[in-house]
Amino acid sequence: MKNQVKINGDRLMRSIFELGRFGGLEGGGVSRLALTEADRQARDYVANRMREMDMSVWVDGIGNIIGTYAGNEDLPPVMMGSHIDTVAAGGLYDGNYGVLSGLEVVAALKDQDCRLRRPVAVGVFTNEEGVRFQPDMLGSLVFAGGCSLEEALATTDQEGLSVAEALRGIGYHGPEPVTGFPVDRYIELHIEQGPILDLEKCPIGVVEGVQGISWTEFTLTGQANHAGTTPMNMRHDAGYVAAKIMARAYELALGLGSGQHATVGRISEFGPGMVNVIPDKVVFTVDLRNYREEVLQEAEKELFSFAEALAAEHGVGCERKSLARFQPVVFAEEITGLIRAEAEAMGLGYRVLPSGAGHDAQMLARVCPSGMIFVPNKDGISHNIKEHAEPEDLITGAELLRRVVMSLADRP
Amino acid sequence: MKNQVKINGDRLMRSIFELGRFGGLEGGGVSRLALTEADRQARDYVANRMREMDMSVWVDGIGNIIGTYAGNEDLPPVMMGSHIDTVAAGGLYDGNYGVLSGLEVVAALKDQDCRLRRPVAVGVFTNEEGVRFQPDMLGSLVFAGGCSLEEALATTDQEGLSVAEALRGIGYHGPEPVTGFPVDRYIELHIEQGPILDLEKCPIGVVEGVQGISWTEFTLTGQANHAGTTPMNMRHDAGYVAAKIMARAYELALGLGSGQHATVGRISEFGPGMVNVIPDKVVFTVDLRNYREEVLQEAEKELFSFAEALAAEHGVGCERKSLARFQPVVFAEEITGLIRAEAEAMGLGYRVLPSGAGHDAQMLARVCPSGMIFVPNKDGISHNIKEHAEPEDLITGAELLRRVVMSLADRP
Repeated sequence: MKNQVKINGDRLMRSIFELGRFGGLEGGGVSRLALTEADRQARDYVANRMREMDMSVWVDGIGNIIGTYAGNEDLPPVMMGSHIDTVAAGGLYDGNYGVLSGLEVVAALKDQDCRLRRPVAVGVFTNEEGVRFQPDMLGSLVFAGGCSLEEALATTDQEGLSVAEALRGIGYHGPEPVTGFPVDRYIELHIEQGPILDLEKCPIGVVEGVQGISWTEFTLTGQANHAGTTPMNMRHDAGYVAAKIMARAYELALGLGSGQHATVGRISEFGPGMVNVIPDKVVFTVDLRNYREEVLQEAEKELFSFAEALAAEHGVGCERKSLARFQPVVFAEEITGLIRAEAEAMGLGYRVLPSGAGHDAQMLARVCPSGMIFVPNKDGISHNIKEHAEPEDLITGAELLRRVVMSLADRP
Repeated sequence: MKNQVKINGDRLMRSIFELGRFGGLEGGGVSRLALTEADRQARDYVANRMREMDMSVWVDGIGNIIGTYAGNEDLPPVMMGSHIDTVAAGGLYDGNYGVLSGLEVVAALKDQDCRLRRPVAVGVFTNEEGVRFQPDMLGSLVFAGGCSLEEALATTDQEGLSVAEALRGIGYHGPEPVTGFPVDRYIELHIEQGPILDLEKCPIGVVEGVQGISWTEFTLTGQANHAGTTPMNMRHDAGYVAAKIMARAYELALGLGSGQHATVGRISEFGPGMVNVIPDKVVFTVDLRNYREEVLQEAEKELFSFAEALAAEHGVGCERKSLARFQPVVFAEEITGLIRAEAEAMGLGYRVLPSGAGHDAQMLARVCPSGMIFVPNKDGISHNIKEHAEPEDLITGAELLRRVVMSLADRP
């Protein structure tokens, strides 16, 4: 019976397209920011599928959803999972694939009426993308005890709406406690969101760890004045100082090498915003990432001191706010070893690689041995409506996930 | 009778504060973008004052308002004027002072029942600031035949609303033709919007000419992608290219010297605008100004070729659109000489200086001998709610305007 359990690839792919309708954009792609109406619809879809498979459904105070498929013994479950929120113009796969593959593993077990020793769970974590609320990975961070529920609920979006209000608005402010849920092991399946597996035509990535992340919001305050009459040497031009810091972030990442990344992704204010007025206020973010904590710290230090010195030189105020800061994570060798062994048993090529993106698995790694499996996605393009992965690769990844989970859930 | 005509300083100052109520901001300053409801209220105020003084009121197809106080002979009038639209967070004086001083000159004539040989007119020109619709100085540009009425009416704001629709919306799409209005001479009184007169404690600026202006909107198109997984050397980061062009504009102005100004005042798009996504679209403006056309052209050439080369290097699309381009203007010696002579007759110190800002007078200079008088404003701060000028300086300027206008309107 157990050796007849197998992923149904059609069912998996159908679920990916079904879920993609919620917040689906004309012409492709998905816009499903955390805790919006589209997110509510997607949550309902996932929770309904859990219930249809006789999974118990648990919703906690930060809106994480955990469906559990009972085992033969009442032990902490082996958990799969990811998130179903997307960026404002994202794709079908980022996050969703991990959740839906988890449901497909349970469906495959159920097809054969197969129960394992331990329960098998699927977790759906709130606000992983961090687009609407910062920090990112908020649901799994709270779940792992890395941030208090009160602090997380008080976080507001750009319109000033809090996480608590948004959760209540969509009916997902659940009754269950956010910490203490027992998890035995955690495995997250995800598209790579980078070009390596696709370039190397390699079907499987065994993820050794996750980059550290540093998100900073800069607020520069200069003086608005007339563009035509204010001598260049008498200006307090917040826009110029911002431009120099933005360019410096990019260039210091290039200069440091060592896998350092730097991105200025958001300018939320550029005021007063007129062609002929020197800008007096600029608010923008810098996203720095590295696998090595010491290089990440060096990048932060260099950028911050550059910004402070330049702003002072121009008589421009410079404030910094940390929106997120996570150290690099190394996944348990127990898990990465098992993934490698199962991939070999399936005759699949694989590559051990780190994750450039943050993932819920890095938070779960705080509470139990955790790991991740990557599958290729086209040109590594993600956070983009053009995000694409081949059904064959997605189904292969889900089959590997099934084997790893069955092995973990049945171990003595 | 004629030599009893005198500016009433209290009445002038009262009118400045009265007009400042329309679009007035709490805590000071004025927000009165062209063709908004606040602009309509301000226009009604000015037109009512014209009618109260038995001036004929003419509204043309671009919404310019011209009030005429009849002379003893039916000749082309000597015109004063300026504009009453402001930037989004502007002051009480920019533009408004020129219009209200013109009305005060007429009021002073009327106090003494004094008629001059020629009529005296006050012009209020539409959308001088160019904040809502580009180019700036739109009303006077059309008035002087520099742009067709059709083209001007079709110009749209950031929300896609056209000048024609906005004019109809506030009831100022007037019946009169926009060109061919006979003007004998044009004099505009304005705050300096620069620091020179204030620094030198000099009450009067005799304006010799106006800087050339070049407004360009850049649209950069890159590729959105994940901030953590996209290697630095595989990015098409529209934000980085934008930052470099913004910084370059500032630095080339510093480097060229020769009074070159450069300002990036508006970023109207920075998309998709998420902390962890490489930006794929940035739209921003560059405002370049110089008194010397050849230096202005050099600045344009250097900036445009820098932008094109850098964008190409990064695989980022770079499009340019000219929002406004005006050559430097030299005012008629006949007018600047008269202003100097009248200032001397009043015992006032003056300084001959160019204008860094664009003004309606530079458009009127296309149709008749024109000139401008400046008065000091505190620290030269303008296009800012802190814009301030001393009543004494404002009244002195209006008195000089009266003398110049009376001299021009009574000449044989």
